[in-house]
Amino acid sequence: MDKTAHKKSINDFGKFGLVNHLTKDVRTGNKTTITGIGDDSAVVDSGNNLTLVSTDLLLEGIHFNLIYTPLKHLGYKAVIRAISDIYAMNGTPGQVMIALGISSKFKLDQVEDLYEGISLACEKYHVDLVGGDITSSLTGMTIGVTSIGTAGKNNIIKRNGARPNDLICVTGDFGASFMGLQLLERERKLFVKDKVTQPDLSGFEYVIKRQLKPEIPVSTLIDLKKEEIIPTSMIDVTDGLASDLLHICKLSGTCCRIFYSKVPIDYETTRLAEEFNIDPMTPALNGGEDFELLFTVPLEMVEKIKLVPSVKVIGHMTTSGSGNYIVGDDGSEVEITAQGWKE
Amino acid sequence: MDKTAHKKSINDFGKFGLVNHLTKDVRTGNKTTITGIGDDSAVVDSGNNLTLVSTDLLLEGIHFNLIYTPLKHLGYKAVIRAISDIYAMNGTPGQVMIALGISSKFKLDQVEDLYEGISLACEKYHVDLVGGDITSSLTGMTIGVTSIGTAGKNNIIKRNGARPNDLICVTGDFGASFMGLQLLERERKLFVKDKVTQPDLSGFEYVIKRQLKPEIPVSTLIDLKKEEIIPTSMIDVTDGLASDLLHICKLSGTCCRIFYSKVPIDYETTRLAEEFNIDPMTPALNGGEDFELLFTVPLEMVEKIKLVPSVKVIGHMTTSGSGNYIVGDDGSEVEITAQGWKE
Repeated sequence: MDKTAHKKSINDFGKFGLVNHLTKDVRTGNKTTITGIGDDSAVVDSGNNLTLVSTDLLLEGIHFNLIYTPLKHLGYKAVIRAISDIYAMNGTPGQVMIALGISSKFKLDQVEDLYEGISLACEKYHVDLVGGDITSSLTGMTIGVTSIGTAGKNNIIKRNGARPNDLICVTGDFGASFMGLQLLERERKLFVKDKVTQPDLSGFEYVIKRQLKPEIPVSTLIDLKKEEIIPTSMIDVTDGLASDLLHICKLSGTCCRIFYSKVPIDYETTRLAEEFNIDPMTPALNGGEDFELLFTVPLEMVEKIKLVPSVKVIGHMTTSGSGNYIVGDDGSEVEITAQGWKE
Repeated sequence: MDKTAHKKSINDFGKFGLVNHLTKDVRTGNKTTITGIGDDSAVVDSGNNLTLVSTDLLLEGIHFNLIYTPLKHLGYKAVIRAISDIYAMNGTPGQVMIALGISSKFKLDQVEDLYEGISLACEKYHVDLVGGDITSSLTGMTIGVTSIGTAGKNNIIKRNGARPNDLICVTGDFGASFMGLQLLERERKLFVKDKVTQPDLSGFEYVIKRQLKPEIPVSTLIDLKKEEIIPTSMIDVTDGLASDLLHICKLSGTCCRIFYSKVPIDYETTRLAEEFNIDPMTPALNGGEDFELLFTVPLEMVEKIKLVPSVKVIGHMTTSGSGNYIVGDDGSEVEITAQGWKE
């Protein structure tokens, strides 16, 4: 390894660059290890089935701001984040474990609210809470969430199976969660300034909900099964559509071309982006926390995929080396880049 | 629930009291959930075998102090902590996942050191690193570790199987890790004071190693298997011998009696405790992070257990309601209490 690299700041790497750098020599040796680093969940051979395990760390001030995040919603979202990774591999989540770090500033009713949100999400998605450790922290709140799921041996869908010409499909819409966060942040700043102004969130209920209480498009997975459509690759969109699409491309050895006019964006997202003077495509591509599914299907499924109303085709995979582009209505091509992709 | 309790500070609860309070209404519903909250690992039915999953959160300033903890050792210990929970259920760890939160103050070579320690422990204990997410944090370092293991359906040993008259057995010795921490802390304070004094750790290599680079008594598990001794209950001693013994008692519905002179304490621990003017039994009972195994075997195994040289019998279980006591050489009885047990 390049010795001078050692004194590099970790900021010199993008997020994914750092993970790749640190784990590039990691080899797996256990015969039960099916999938290691690099996919949504780890996959472990457990006899007849596969066991999927995913883990996630939520840090106060980074992943959530308690000023505008009700703890009940935070608990709910923590579970959603964790089980989303299991669904993204076409698995069924069965259990979650929570490891909580909290400082003494928190009151019992706050922690109870958090757990109420956790329980609500567990109930809705039929998962059991099977671990609940709590440790004290010096400052703030840290939440570690681990989810466990199962999948049949032939049903698992990884990030690396996309092939050139595959159709790029998505559920739902993009950028709403990010714009919801911008709105909450703006209202917080106004409140800090004069302490009287009440937040005005009316007309933006959808983007707020997408930020605070996201859901997972489970029904689409059921519909795909019903139509016997087996995606060649799949990921949940948490880092941003661009970033997660590049993940699939990198691991599949493909490039991609998506169409500007095809990327689904909700009306509220567009309206709010205009208020903020930004192109709605920016949050749609780079916002993240959409919890939608991004997957690819073979080109010959083009008619079949139309039978699933919750799915939209936004582009197609191309051969390695042909570049990753978003194509405008006028045919202009802009390269797709993403945060965290500095190597 | 008592409504006035809601405004309680979380400090009004002990650690275990808070977890119990928050999770008391948690019910499991999935048929794959075998064991939920309350044991070392969660246990999931995965067909022919059981899958064990354990998760852990390490916070800077609480679980480790980077002033005297080399990052390589920290990485090593993080893995030890995680897989110890799998061994404690008589399972075999196969995989670990690391979720790292780090602030920009960290340099690449530091994070590399951390990962080197992680890799070393993985190699030594034959586990695969299968997840390695990194997120930025506002301050300090947070490490989330999840471990995955397997066990045969009839081989798992839980915390709740101890019966009255069972022998209470331990591996290794107790209190060394805690005294190692006290020593490191003392030397740090001296260093802060005059910035010249070099730490004097000579003669205390064992306690330092127990604090910074602990190991798991895997060979004892192998010996027990060889002698066909199946413990009725088991736990790894991380919270402290007293606390972990009370865990077994509470879940098994038993009480216990252990003998002062039987609790194994290393010479270095005793010598250092004397320097610090404390009874060596205090760190032995309440220090924690010993990573030894504490287990119970039926009374009729009394001769067989002597065949395992790494195991010591320190007492026996008694019937519920008879109190938990440590018995002195003169027959005096002192009640066993533990931190975190305030309900």
